[in-house]
Amino acid sequence: MRNIVLIGFMGTGKTAVGERLAGRLGWAFVDTDGLVEAREGRTIPEIFQSQGEAYFRHLESQVVGEVCLGERQVIATGGGVVLRPENRKLLREAGVVISLVAEPEALLARLGSAEGRPLLAGNVQGNLLRLLREREPLYRDADIVLDVTGKELEDVVNECLDRLGERVCETLTVRTRERVYPVHVGEGIVSLLGWALGKIASGRRVALLTHRDLHARYGEMVVRALEASGYEVTVITIPSGERTKSLRTAQRLYDCLASSRIDRSSILVAMGGGVIGDVGGFVASTYMRGIPLVHLPTTLLAQVDSSIGGKTAVNHPRAKNLVGTFYQPHMVMADVAFLRSLPKREVRAGLAEVVKAGVVGDPDLFLHLEQNHRRILSLETNPLVESIKRAVAVKVHVVEEDERDQNRRMVLNYGHTIGHALEVAAGFRYRHGEAVAIGMALEAEVARRMGLFPEESARRQEELLRHIGLPTRPRAVEPMKVLEAMALDKKARGGKLRFALPVAIGHVEIVEDVPTSILEEVLRDGEDPCGTWS
Amino acid sequence: MRNIVLIGFMGTGKTAVGERLAGRLGWAFVDTDGLVEAREGRTIPEIFQSQGEAYFRHLESQVVGEVCLGERQVIATGGGVVLRPENRKLLREAGVVISLVAEPEALLARLGSAEGRPLLAGNVQGNLLRLLREREPLYRDADIVLDVTGKELEDVVNECLDRLGERVCETLTVRTRERVYPVHVGEGIVSLLGWALGKIASGRRVALLTHRDLHARYGEMVVRALEASGYEVTVITIPSGERTKSLRTAQRLYDCLASSRIDRSSILVAMGGGVIGDVGGFVASTYMRGIPLVHLPTTLLAQVDSSIGGKTAVNHPRAKNLVGTFYQPHMVMADVAFLRSLPKREVRAGLAEVVKAGVVGDPDLFLHLEQNHRRILSLETNPLVESIKRAVAVKVHVVEEDERDQNRRMVLNYGHTIGHALEVAAGFRYRHGEAVAIGMALEAEVARRMGLFPEESARRQEELLRHIGLPTRPRAVEPMKVLEAMALDKKARGGKLRFALPVAIGHVEIVEDVPTSILEEVLRDGEDPCGTWS
Repeated sequence: MRNIVLIGFMGTGKTAVGERLAGRLGWAFVDTDGLVEAREGRTIPEIFQSQGEAYFRHLESQVVGEVCLGERQVIATGGGVVLRPENRKLLREAGVVISLVAEPEALLARLGSAEGRPLLAGNVQGNLLRLLREREPLYRDADIVLDVTGKELEDVVNECLDRLGERVCETLTVRTRERVYPVHVGEGIVSLLGWALGKIASGRRVALLTHRDLHARYGEMVVRALEASGYEVTVITIPSGERTKSLRTAQRLYDCLASSRIDRSSILVAMGGGVIGDVGGFVASTYMRGIPLVHLPTTLLAQVDSSIGGKTAVNHPRAKNLVGTFYQPHMVMADVAFLRSLPKREVRAGLAEVVKAGVVGDPDLFLHLEQNHRRILSLETNPLVESIKRAVAVKVHVVEEDERDQNRRMVLNYGHTIGHALEVAAGFRYRHGEAVAIGMALEAEVARRMGLFPEESARRQEELLRHIGLPTRPRAVEPMKVLEAMALDKKARGGKLRFALPVAIGHVEIVEDVPTSILEEVLRDGEDPCGTWS
Repeated sequence: MRNIVLIGFMGTGKTAVGERLAGRLGWAFVDTDGLVEAREGRTIPEIFQSQGEAYFRHLESQVVGEVCLGERQVIATGGGVVLRPENRKLLREAGVVISLVAEPEALLARLGSAEGRPLLAGNVQGNLLRLLREREPLYRDADIVLDVTGKELEDVVNECLDRLGERVCETLTVRTRERVYPVHVGEGIVSLLGWALGKIASGRRVALLTHRDLHARYGEMVVRALEASGYEVTVITIPSGERTKSLRTAQRLYDCLASSRIDRSSILVAMGGGVIGDVGGFVASTYMRGIPLVHLPTTLLAQVDSSIGGKTAVNHPRAKNLVGTFYQPHMVMADVAFLRSLPKREVRAGLAEVVKAGVVGDPDLFLHLEQNHRRILSLETNPLVESIKRAVAVKVHVVEEDERDQNRRMVLNYGHTIGHALEVAAGFRYRHGEAVAIGMALEAEVARRMGLFPEESARRQEELLRHIGLPTRPRAVEPMKVLEAMALDKKARGGKLRFALPVAIGHVEIVEDVPTSILEEVLRDGEDPCGTWS
């Protein structure tokens, strides 16, 4: 949703609705008729009178072309803008097109005379009905068609926002014991944050928790979107990196929240990756015994994984994530626009968890990735949103079954048993998603050798990971170190080394009795064709 | 449950069961036959032979009399101990009497010959049947009658523990969204802790969190009870007082738990009053995202109020209880034996919350308090347990309706709106329960003047509070300061000053529109007949 374009017959209220809508989103409002008049220094009737409609249409197309280059604008258009196919194409590409329509009687009543409306001059009613008839199919051809007959301006604006929300967000509903909440996935949807918050909390105060660099890049936009909806926003930034995930940070945040008079009717919005989500979730769950929490994940990993499921955490000198809670957010808004500023390596790493979701529970997602990995890697909106939505759905499904991390949730560990040990053994040289990719490749090989996973499926997974540009074999890591790290993990978990192993693309099972010999073989045989595995 | 007494015919296994049972409880085992033999330096057949049954019965009664003075013993008796009414009376008063019974065939099979059993000599089967017939009614007269026919020793011991648990605990079940858990109320039931823990967690590690003085008094007993059931116990003590309820303490506790290898299969047992419950609950809810938590409340206030409902908290420099969670315990064990070492003033203060429970939701509890306040104040077991159980039931009922402290839970604030303001205005000179008692008296008066609460009911409440020895009017507190404190509270709660006011003994309603004039009048008129009000 780069822009919102309002089309419709004269008198449907495009300018009034557009101005109000832009106000609610914190966006700019532009009016193509106004721009034409400003450029010419004359009114539209004057232009029509002196140089005719064709000249006006020419100017209008010029203005449309220029306006469509911008973003975060609500663009109100003249009634006849839809007549030229090139205008329609430009506007459609520029954003979501909302067509305001009304009954002819209502339009007549609103327009009254033809004053300032050259096209109606002469026979107002006759001209109006004729024009309506001619243009009707053009007005119907929009993303959203909204009948404004008999409605108050404010109601039209609210309806616009609701319909926009439905149109631009792919929304999943998560049903946990703690609460039922939406996960919205889409492009540019963060502008709808203020609108969406109104549905989950009554208070008007928001604490926006983020990192300094994210705030520099997105803060103003997000704050504007919130303030446009009447929220009073306090921005709190914390340094990035795992070291920030501490009780000391939590203590500082409690302080900031209290001094900003955040209470249980307020909302904490956590905008960032895993660290922000973990520490923000922990603080939201423990401040005043829990305040509303909204995740605005800005990395692919956070969008498909860490923002879903309600795990919060801070680290403790003795162990990572030793202190934390289970606390479901009140909403997750995964805006793929955030991903466009990520380094490519981070996108690839995030896609490892998407591939995992496919293998764990969605063969169609796997196929979608096989067919569209190039478009997804170049962050093309539709296949990207589809991938994220499906990956989220897999996790949501598992979390709904096992909110408190008892057994079923173990399937999400596919690729992580070896992957995590590898991270440790390689001294955290790998990104998490890269280690998971290698973990999946090796665990799939374990499953294959145990006769659980067909060779063909293992090959498909291997190829997909490579196409995405992910490693599938470790480089320069001692297999024994990986085994040792796994043994440590096993000890920490009370003696059981359980694997989540695939039996088909789309189905993973928990296996407790993986023969150590197979495990060792796979680790030893895992020679990286492009490097050294020893 | 001061002692456990095993009665039953010879051959029912009293000694073997008793020894094993004592082991499981961490109690002493005594055997009256053994004591008689030790004292005489001869075996029982020898005593029978040389001085006859009457002499033996005399010795046996002496031993019973002495043994019954002790506590925390499993007492195995001779088969004939029930013959003398004075023995039966002493044993019954000494503790819970468990009678082991068995089919005659089973007894015959076990006894085999009459060797060492002088009463069976001659005709084993005939004598056995005759004795059984004679004594059967005496064996039936016990707290628990347990048929051991065909059962393994271990099963008999487990059944003893289960039946004991049912017999000595008044158990309420709390059903929350988070979990379903029992609240056990009774005398001396902490000895059953190990048995009860086995029903809620699989691990064998327990962290016992308490204060140093409580540990000195009860620690050994509790640790023994736990170790007797095979638990590995780490005791962690923290200083008493509100200052201890801090994130700094929590941090220290995370450290202790991690170094004691406490994990999600282990249990944190919080033994103490409100501070221990709050900080222990907070740590249990946030360590590894929540580990099993058991409350062992040692004050009356904690038993009827703070241990129920799942609120956990630590203080923050900016506000009391600013940081916390909602986290339901896995069990609450309210042992009234703990209350016997409390100062009388603390018992009275705790009873204020019991009176409140009666007015809020249980007219029978209120009547029970009116009729038994003297016995309750002297901590007589039965009326005390009944009071606690009923008060807990009122809170449980409200909590089940409103787990997350939204609206309904407000009724529990009866007496607390004025009471809390009074605590602040009086510089925390009052104990919490005392301030609540005054708060209830004044709020009842507000309700009376508003025509909500009958004068007769207000008088009954006033009298009950006075009989318990609680204040009902503030002394030397400026009414304006109380009003100011309430206004501050109101501001903190977002502008609404809501009262939970009684409309009958047993029913309280939320009232938002209490006229300030009535409030001021009541506060000004609240002259303490025994002191100075203003």
